Amino acid sequence: MTAPGERADPADLIELLVAHSWTVATAESLTGGLVCARLVDVPGASRAVQGGIVAYQTGLKGSVLGVDGGLLDRHGAVHARVAEQMAQGAVDRLGATFGVATTGVAGPASEDGHAPGTVFLGLARSGSSASVPLHLSGGRAEIRNATVEAALSALTRFVREAAAARQPGS
Amino acid sequence: MTAPGERADPADLIELLVAHSWTVATAESLTGGLVCARLVDVPGASRAVQGGIVAYQTGLKGSVLGVDGGLLDRHGAVHARVAEQMAQGAVDRLGATFGVATTGVAGPASEDGHAPGTVFLGLARSGSSASVPLHLSGGRAEIRNATVEAALSALTRFVREAAAARQPGS
Repeated sequence: MTAPGERADPADLIELLVAHSWTVATAESLTGGLVCARLVDVPGASRAVQGGIVAYQTGLKGSVLGVDGGLLDRHGAVHARVAEQMAQGAVDRLGATFGVATTGVAGPASEDGHAPGTVFLGLARSGSSASVPLHLSGGRAEIRNATVEAALSALTRFVREAAAARQPGS
Repeated sequence: MTAPGERADPADLIELLVAHSWTVATAESLTGGLVCARLVDVPGASRAVQGGIVAYQTGLKGSVLGVDGGLLDRHGAVHARVAEQMAQGAVDRLGATFGVATTGVAGPASEDGHAPGTVFLGLARSGSSASVPLHLSGGRAEIRNATVEAALSALTRFVREAAAARQPGS
């Protein structure tokens, strides 16, 4: 298992997805495409990676990913439920088994009253979703890179849990 | 001006876009989100970067980006017109002034009869589009990184030409 904080190997994740005929898609804000790029970096990634959506502007999180507009109006884009709905939007829009999402503040300035390093990860599959809050420190690049690593680890745990539930004896 | 092959600075591109109140969006295949990530890497990128779509699977180039299905059926995804239509899809779907797209073969295997290193860039704004063929060598990472650099350079030239056309005296 990948424990929280442990560095996940995207190649292992791709193999696990392929073994179950599962696919994955991403929905990113502050990471700007880096989570998807790390998945695509694996040779043979096309067996499991559908694609991704970078919804950098808040409005696109609603119009392209289907995040609830009232939620965005009330809380802004840096919110656990926004992260979950972004991940669900990736699943729905890109036809994937699993979705992973990132939203938060990379800095240098605060956004919507949240300090740099305030980040939420979203995880989803059809009918279920979850979020992971992160409190990161460092500069813009460090926060983004730490978010990418945390997203890959959280996605790996989420997929492994689904695999374990499917095969109780394994 | 950025000559072909010269390394473009995304920060200069963002400043140019902001100066004209223009925005940009990306549509990526083999680069998997890296072009968008390079743009978002610039502090203050949110003033000009709308977002991006990674349509890694061929079908998503049609369903999410609006590339003509007949074109994809006849030629596959590695084609100049596919690159142009992907860029146009980014403009339309993400509401941007300019779109840039990448499609091609990163390897290690050939795809649709094209050798690794066969890449097309697409550029678009409302009502006009262009493509740039690339013939790259090296491994999977080198081809992807060279495609990212070429896409940023080509986009910068495209935007500068639009700026020059808008301000004949500059």
